[in-house]
Amino acid sequence: MADTKIYRASTTAPVNIAVIKYWGKRDVTLNLPTNSSLSVTLSQSDLRTHTTASCSSTFTSDTLHLNSAPQDITGARLQACLRALRSLRAAHEASNPSLPPLSTLPLRLASRNNFPTAAGLASSAAGFAALVRAIADLYELPSSPTELSLIARQGSGSACRSLFGGYVAWNAGTATDGSDSSAELVAEAAHWPDMRAAILVASAKKKAVSSTAGMQATVKTSSLFPHRAETVVPARMAAMRAAIAGRDFAAFADLTMKDSNSFHAVCLDTTPPIFYMSDVSRAAVRVVEGINAAAAADGITRPVAAYTFDAGPNAVVYYLAEDEARVAGAFKALLGSVEGWETARGAVVQAADVARVVAYDEGAAETLAGGIQRVILTGVGEGPISVSEHLVNEAGEVILE
Amino acid sequence: MADTKIYRASTTAPVNIAVIKYWGKRDVTLNLPTNSSLSVTLSQSDLRTHTTASCSSTFTSDTLHLNSAPQDITGARLQACLRALRSLRAAHEASNPSLPPLSTLPLRLASRNNFPTAAGLASSAAGFAALVRAIADLYELPSSPTELSLIARQGSGSACRSLFGGYVAWNAGTATDGSDSSAELVAEAAHWPDMRAAILVASAKKKAVSSTAGMQATVKTSSLFPHRAETVVPARMAAMRAAIAGRDFAAFADLTMKDSNSFHAVCLDTTPPIFYMSDVSRAAVRVVEGINAAAAADGITRPVAAYTFDAGPNAVVYYLAEDEARVAGAFKALLGSVEGWETARGAVVQAADVARVVAYDEGAAETLAGGIQRVILTGVGEGPISVSEHLVNEAGEVILE
Repeated sequence: MADTKIYRASTTAPVNIAVIKYWGKRDVTLNLPTNSSLSVTLSQSDLRTHTTASCSSTFTSDTLHLNSAPQDITGARLQACLRALRSLRAAHEASNPSLPPLSTLPLRLASRNNFPTAAGLASSAAGFAALVRAIADLYELPSSPTELSLIARQGSGSACRSLFGGYVAWNAGTATDGSDSSAELVAEAAHWPDMRAAILVASAKKKAVSSTAGMQATVKTSSLFPHRAETVVPARMAAMRAAIAGRDFAAFADLTMKDSNSFHAVCLDTTPPIFYMSDVSRAAVRVVEGINAAAAADGITRPVAAYTFDAGPNAVVYYLAEDEARVAGAFKALLGSVEGWETARGAVVQAADVARVVAYDEGAAETLAGGIQRVILTGVGEGPISVSEHLVNEAGEVILE
Repeated sequence: MADTKIYRASTTAPVNIAVIKYWGKRDVTLNLPTNSSLSVTLSQSDLRTHTTASCSSTFTSDTLHLNSAPQDITGARLQACLRALRSLRAAHEASNPSLPPLSTLPLRLASRNNFPTAAGLASSAAGFAALVRAIADLYELPSSPTELSLIARQGSGSACRSLFGGYVAWNAGTATDGSDSSAELVAEAAHWPDMRAAILVASAKKKAVSSTAGMQATVKTSSLFPHRAETVVPARMAAMRAAIAGRDFAAFADLTMKDSNSFHAVCLDTTPPIFYMSDVSRAAVRVVEGINAAAAADGITRPVAAYTFDAGPNAVVYYLAEDEARVAGAFKALLGSVEGWETARGAVVQAADVARVVAYDEGAAETLAGGIQRVILTGVGEGPISVSEHLVNEAGEVILE
C-alpha cells in the first residue's frame, strides 16, 4: 500500500537587524557578500514568521502560501533552497534506508507573519530562515544551524543570520563556492539579555530601489565602497565582537550608528544615488542625538540610544532595559498618538519629560512626530523555535486565516 | 600739507560653484584643503558682490559695511587678508618711494551683493574675492590673480577660485605654509561659453552645520574620507580637466554628479552625521535623472543636465545652452509659479512638455514643486571686473542703499 501520510513540521523564525551592515554581493547567484556583517536577533513575541513544511505523495506539486495567498515558487532563490534541502534529505535516506523517501515527495509550504508586510520590515530574512528550518525539521536533517545558514543565505543573504538567536555574525568567507560564507553565533541572547529595540515605522511608501539591485549598483559604481568593504568593516566587525563580549553599550552604540551611516553613505555614492533615508529618518537621528545629549547632561557618561537604518526609512533604535524610560519614554512623549506602546512583557511605556530632547533640535522633533505611523517595542530574542501549531492540517490542506 | 585724499578702487566679483568639491582642511588657520577642487565661475549679471576699498588719513580705523550694515572686522580670516595685502603694499612702497603710504592708512570697505544673502548661496567666496581684488587695485599691486588667490584663500577657501572667470582649479598644494595652495585658470569662459546653470533655491532654513565645523568633523571622524581625499578626487581632477579641455559635457556631467554625491556621502559618514541634502534636494536629483532619461528616449546619447549640491539643500543644475528648452524648460513646467525665469540675456524660458519627466518619478516632481521658492538662471562668466561706481563717495562716506 502506498504511503499517503501527510508529513509535517512547523517552526517560527525571527527577524534580525544588522548593526554592521551587509551591503554588496561578490556573487549574486550564491548571495556571497563583499563583507561580513553582524546582527541582533529580535524577539519573536513581537516579530516572527511561522512556517509549516509538509510533504505527501498525495500532493501533486510544490506549493507555497504566504499569509493565505499562493506564491510563485519558481524563483531561483527559493528553488536553490529546496534543491539543497532535498539533496541533504536524499543523502540522509541513502545512508538510512528505513527512512521514508520524503526527498521525492511534493512539498506544501505555508507561512504567516505576525507583522504587517507593508510596514517595510525586512521579512525575507525571517521568511527564508523559517522555510529552511521547517523543511530541515520535516526532513529530520542532522545539520547544524551554521550548515543550514549556508542554504538560507541562498534564499536571502540576511536570512542566514536568523537561524540563531542573540548576537550573530555572517562571515563573508573567501571560497568561490560559498562553502565558508555562513552564520555564526557570537553570543546568545542570555549573554546580554537587556538589549532593547524600538522600531519607528515611517509612514509607508514603497521602497524605491530593491536591495539586490541597489547592492549591485553600489558595487559597480561607488568609488568609496571598496574602502568600506575591505578596510572599514573588517575593523568594525572585530570591535563589535569585543563590544558584545564585554557588554559595552557605548562601543556598541558608536559602532552601530557609524556603520549605518557608512552604509547609507556608499548608497549615496552610487550612480545614480540611492536614497533610503528620508527627512523623517534624519529627524530620528537628531532625536537620538538629543536623547543622548539629555542623558549626558544628567551625568550619564555613555550614549543610551543608538540608531540604525536598513534599506528604507524606518529607524531601529537600540537601547538597554535600564534606559527604557529615557529612550522609549522620549519617543512615547514625541509620538504618543501612534500605536505600539505595549511591550511584549505587558508594560506600557510612560512618556518621559522631553523638553531637552526637543530643545536639541525642535524641527527634528516636529518632523519625527509627523512622519512615524507606528512603533514596535521589542528586544533581543531567540532563534527558530519548533512549534506544534501547523498551518497545514491533517488532511494536507493549508489553513487559511 | 598732510594728504587728506580719499583713495578708492571698486570691483565686482563672481560666485563660483564647484564641480569637484572642496571639503576638508589640512590646516584650519591657513585654509589649506585636503584635496584640490574645480569650479565654474558664474555670470556676474546674475550673482555678484560689488566692493569698494578706500583709504584715507582722515579715517580713524578700519571698517567694513556689507549691504549698508557695519560688520565686525576683528575676525582672524579678514585680518589675515588685510595684513597680507598691507604687507605687499608696504613692499611696493619700499621699492618705489614716490608712492603714497597707503599701507599705513585706515581702510573703509563697503560691499553689496546683488542677490539675497538669505537664499543660502555661498556669498563668502564672492565677498572675499571682491575684497581682496578691490584692495589690491587700491594698492596698485602688481600681483597676479594666482598670487592674490593665496590671500583670498585665507579669507574663505573657495574665494580663491572667484579671482578667475571660466573654469578654475584650486590646487591643494603640499607646502605647510600654503604657498602653493592657490587657484589656477583651467579654461576661460570663452573656451566653453555655452555652459549654463539653473540654481533651484530650496525654501529657506538656516544651515544646520557651518562648513568649517562640518569639514573639521569629517576629517576627524569619517573613515571613508581619507580615501576620497587621497584617491578619488585626484583622479577626478584629472578627468575633469580633460572634460573641460575637450568640451565633453557627458564626462563633465558624470563627474559633477558623482563628486557631489561623494561629498555628501562623506558628510553622512561623519560622526554625528551631517545632512545638507533634504527630501527636496533628493527630488531634484530624481528630476534631473528624469530629464536625462527623457533626452535619452529622444535619442540624445549624452546627459543634458548635471546636478551638484553645496553645503545646503539648493540644487545647481549645469546644462548647455543648446539644451535650455529641455532642462530649464522642464523646471519651468514643474516650478512655473516661482520667480526667476528671465535669463540675463532677456529671454523668458518657456515651459517644456514634462510628461516623461514626471512619469520617471511622480513623487519627486511633486516634492520639488512644493519645495523650491526661487530659480536663478545663469551661466559661466568672467572673473572680477574693475568698476567706476564706488560705494564710498568722494567725501569718504559709505553710500547707504
